[in-house]
Amino acid sequence: MTPPASYRFTVRLHDIDAAGVMFFGHLFRHAHDAYESVMANLGQPLADLIQAGVRLPLVHAEADYRQALRQGDEIRVEVACATLGGSAFTLGYRFCDADGVLRATARTVHVHLGPDGSGSAPLPPDIRSALASLVQAGSCA
Amino acid sequence: MTPPASYRFTVRLHDIDAAGVMFFGHLFRHAHDAYESVMANLGQPLADLIQAGVRLPLVHAEADYRQALRQGDEIRVEVACATLGGSAFTLGYRFCDADGVLRATARTVHVHLGPDGSGSAPLPPDIRSALASLVQAGSCA
Amino acid sequence: MTPPASYRFTVRLHDIDAAGVMFFGHLFRHAHDAYESVMANLGQPLADLIQAGVRLPLVHAEADYRQALRQGDEIRVEVACATLGGSAFTLGYRFCDADGVLRATARTVHVHLGPDGSGSAPLPPDIRSALASLVQAGSCA
Amino acid sequence: MTPPASYRFTVRLHDIDAAGVMFFGHLFRHAHDAYESVMANLGQPLADLIQAGVRLPLVHAEADYRQALRQGDEIRVEVACATLGGSAFTLGYRFCDADGVLRATARTVHVHLGPDGSGSAPLPPDIRSALASLVQAGSCA
Repeated sequence: MTPPASYRFTVRLHDIDAAGVMFFGHLFRHAHDAYESVMANLGQPLADLIQAGVRLPLVHAEADYRQALRQGDEIRVEVACATLGGSAFTLGYRFCDADGVLRATARTVHVHLGPDGSGSAPLPPDIRSALASLVQAGSCA
Repeated sequence: MTPPASYRFTVRLHDIDAAGVMFFGHLFRHAHDAYESVMANLGQPLADLIQAGVRLPLVHAEADYRQALRQGDEIRVEVACATLGGSAFTLGYRFCDADGVLRATARTVHVHLGPDGSGSAPLPPDIRSALASLVQAGSCA
Repeated sequence: MTPPASYRFTVRLHDIDAAGVMFFGHLFRHAHDAYESVMANLGQPLADLIQAGVRLPLVHAEADYRQALRQGDEIRVEVACATLGGSAFTLGYRFCDADGVLRATARTVHVHLGPDGSGSAPLPPDIRSALASLVQAGSCA
Repeated sequence: MTPPASYRFTVRLHDIDAAGVMFFGHLFRHAHDAYESVMANLGQPLADLIQAGVRLPLVHAEADYRQALRQGDEIRVEVACATLGGSAFTLGYRFCDADGVLRATARTVHVHLGPDGSGSAPLPPDIRSALASLVQAGSCA
């Protein structure tokens, strides 16, 4: 597992909901933080891409919850590029705890929007090569 | 479309992210608000269920994004029960705008946890019958 | 109490934190939702103002918490304009529950940014008159 | 400035709102994350305190915004204990950017709740001594 493709966070007080576990929707916030961190590590900070007019919106997102996350849990997110198409890509996320247990997984599908914002366009080469470096998936252990 | 199965919200300033559209993760917050509102309308407020020890955690969530949501958009969420099993159920959500356009869909899969919190247990009859009333899906138009 | 100056919300599952009460920071989200709703009711939707280049950023925010908010609480927010200066204004928020009990208050101070984004500028007349209509404060009872 | 009293975060895509800057309410989320991190570093993780029945709810929160935070900003939060009373304490937060510029400040006032949840109670000695170690305030530069 190469260092740029992982990201760490601690589950915080406000991540927990009235049922006493992390609100499921917050997993997607943490997944996107991991994506954003990994892209910055690869020299493609999202803030710069947005500034340059590049838009990579999600068309699909999903998550599977294996074991509830609780306040104080220290989680490592491993980010891999599951598919890399002409204008779209799929990222996979594995949420591992400090004991190496896989607690949840997520997937996001992104499309590169064309300049008029309506259709898709080929991925810029720099972004493509950054994503290509994420192709090997990690494992919790 | 029966009234208990819909919920309305307006996309707010903080729903929008640096790319100028609603952050994808917030769709799940709004979906869960719709679920919570619909359950309360059906006489099963989640706060009461949690108080009574009933846990219906998500094991899966997913969303498809058709057209970006923007600040000020007035959205109606239609909630339907897509599958109703012995101890699990799937809810489907359709996010329709003021013009009747379907902007996004989501799905959440919930399992009724047994008293020890580890395995699943049959859905309580009251919850089952509330969910059963949501079986007919709506449509935006 | 004039109708445009109030806003309602229900405390949701994800508003609650690991301590079992609404996370204090979320009060500010609800306060801003109330401000946004009230401004739209007064014909000044924030989305349109932003589109037109009007920026009214906060320079100060504060809240006092009297009694914890809990999941399912139905809250009415009363919004009043506490001070209306040349280029700045202060909004006051009162969070009242279904029994008319004041649960929390908040205050936000906004400044109208000039076109270069650095200094302040006189409030546009339409916004000034909208805010002026909020000068009378409400009361929970 | 002792290491336990600082905390770092990066402003993320979802922190930004429709006006293109960090939503003011999120500053409080980051402030609380800093508090939670600092308390854990001092051997008082909030999750353990909550588990043990200790409640330190906020009765007041406020923030002053000097310069807008933007996506990608790397922020260091310095946490100090401004006042330490018998049953209450005030924390001060300074949000410094990578250039040592003070971008925002915040303050939170906490009260130790008694066992019945209604009144205040003397701060437990361990928590008091942890907070006492935060009395010296830091500076951005």
